[in-house]
Amino acid sequence: MLKFKSLATALTLACSVSLASAWETLPTEAPAPAENPTTSEKVELGQMLYHDPRLSSTGTVSCASCHNTMLGGEDNRANSMGVNGQTGGRSAPTVWNSAFNKVQFWDGRAASLEAQAAGPVTNAIEMGMKSWDDVVARLKSIDGYQVAFEKAFGKDAISKDNATKAIAAYERTLITPNSPYDKYVEGDKAALTLQQVRGMEKMSDLGCTGCHSGAAFNGAGMFQKFPMIANGYFEAQYHFKKDKGVAEVSKNPADENLWKVPTLRNIALTAPYFHNGSVKTLDQAVAIMGQVQLGKDLSKADIADIVAFLNALSGEFPKQKMPVLPGTPGTTFNN
Amino acid sequence: MLKFKSLATALTLACSVSLASAWETLPTEAPAPAENPTTSEKVELGQMLYHDPRLSSTGTVSCASCHNTMLGGEDNRANSMGVNGQTGGRSAPTVWNSAFNKVQFWDGRAASLEAQAAGPVTNAIEMGMKSWDDVVARLKSIDGYQVAFEKAFGKDAISKDNATKAIAAYERTLITPNSPYDKYVEGDKAALTLQQVRGMEKMSDLGCTGCHSGAAFNGAGMFQKFPMIANGYFEAQYHFKKDKGVAEVSKNPADENLWKVPTLRNIALTAPYFHNGSVKTLDQAVAIMGQVQLGKDLSKADIADIVAFLNALSGEFPKQKMPVLPGTPGTTFNN
Repeated sequence: MLKFKSLATALTLACSVSLASAWETLPTEAPAPAENPTTSEKVELGQMLYHDPRLSSTGTVSCASCHNTMLGGEDNRANSMGVNGQTGGRSAPTVWNSAFNKVQFWDGRAASLEAQAAGPVTNAIEMGMKSWDDVVARLKSIDGYQVAFEKAFGKDAISKDNATKAIAAYERTLITPNSPYDKYVEGDKAALTLQQVRGMEKMSDLGCTGCHSGAAFNGAGMFQKFPMIANGYFEAQYHFKKDKGVAEVSKNPADENLWKVPTLRNIALTAPYFHNGSVKTLDQAVAIMGQVQLGKDLSKADIADIVAFLNALSGEFPKQKMPVLPGTPGTTFNN
Repeated sequence: MLKFKSLATALTLACSVSLASAWETLPTEAPAPAENPTTSEKVELGQMLYHDPRLSSTGTVSCASCHNTMLGGEDNRANSMGVNGQTGGRSAPTVWNSAFNKVQFWDGRAASLEAQAAGPVTNAIEMGMKSWDDVVARLKSIDGYQVAFEKAFGKDAISKDNATKAIAAYERTLITPNSPYDKYVEGDKAALTLQQVRGMEKMSDLGCTGCHSGAAFNGAGMFQKFPMIANGYFEAQYHFKKDKGVAEVSKNPADENLWKVPTLRNIALTAPYFHNGSVKTLDQAVAIMGQVQLGKDLSKADIADIVAFLNALSGEFPKQKMPVLPGTPGTTFNN
């Protein structure tokens, strides 16, 4: 009996060693592109812009409205609600750790955070500004932004390019390290429950990590068909194939239902699930992934173990100060 | 010449002394009612609730959406935008220093911040929740709120009463002291420009402070007809009389077009102006007040001086941390 215990311990240790090499922790800093090095002035300006509803036509929708930095980095809605109560067809991806996505948007059509930040502002359904010229004109009418842009970029610096650079610089600070998973991988074996460790092993054994790999569990820029395996029962309920994904942009039939592999970091906090937010619970999302991606009918125990593990990917949110947005003394923003 | 200068100095001093006794500075703390003493646990919970869009039916509108704590405590819109892009007929009053209003809402229909906080959540146009029972059920489904309410109020404490108490406790911390005006009244004569001092004197001489009196320039609970003096020209443009004010609640014709005197603190930051937000600039608002409340055709110089002074009522916003809202792991808020 004693011998068996030792063997078990030895196996656990061996397993841990192999896990430690296979499983990656989240970096606490995100690399910035050469053309937009991160500075505290940019981050401060970016935080202001990110939370400023005056970047929308109605003055009611900021980046944070759909990618909420007080929550899981999105809005827990199937489809986000933009200006005038409009909704689109996709579910807002989390902003947390988006710095570790190689490409942005569900269909990966933006090659950088900078490029992503330019999109929603002038999307008619999202923030509804007619043009970036209008955004720049509005920002220029706010004295406090003149000052903040000058600090970050130099004189007369209010432009689309610099606004999106500042937002991206801020987003690169939105990292959630020290999840139970990270602590476990770093050696704190008490950080995960036994069930979570089982779930972690099943993620690998069943093939989940074939796509959801790397520190952010996002395959580092990988794309994948979803659903891989046709399933009329799910399709009738969730309409996964209605949105053609990458093909909506590329117009190439080969790209139909192709999607960026999304991060699993903080996945427990970002229900509802999938590109169209059609699935309300993580349990159901895992069951569906088993069926349509792996061709496996996961047992209730498998699902429970994997969900327990996915909950261990919720990290620590950085402490943030509330930005103070510059006013427009004596007048409104849209004069 | 020297003598004249001395006389001028003597007059200025005399004037300052008399001003110092007549003009009040903003208290840095707001008194709490006996039934809701302020505690840090309540304030922390209240800040979370105040910024939580899940207090609305769509999950998109929080108290802060219309009463923005990153800006002048409101939204710089004529009429706020609630759930599903709906708008009402009144302009959101600022939350800053609302602790110093004797009554709340434009028509003063709430006798306390606690009573006020209960209103918008179940207003169909604003936050759209069907009932406070639904709000309480939703809050109870969020484990982190169970913990935060327990800290603030004790075991099993999630209720409408406690939610509104926490929000009110938080709002009592939203005070903006140390405006240039306050510094001036406290003896720092360089805190106001000469034009601002002229504007301050005109506020008193012309009769503005007849209503806009006290530390918050809100007449400490006073009501007043607006407009007092019929003006067809303005009425045709701004429709001030369409909304009957207190009479909409009391159904008493004597209360028609009666309104709570609003604070002038941070007034420069809360354009557009008046109960229906119909007037875009502070200059125009001051000109209109002269005409329809005081029966005076203010000169351009008078208006410029008064507006300069009103800009000196913008205070210091307290540093706030960004709240971290509790999540609903594995599911959405409205399941």
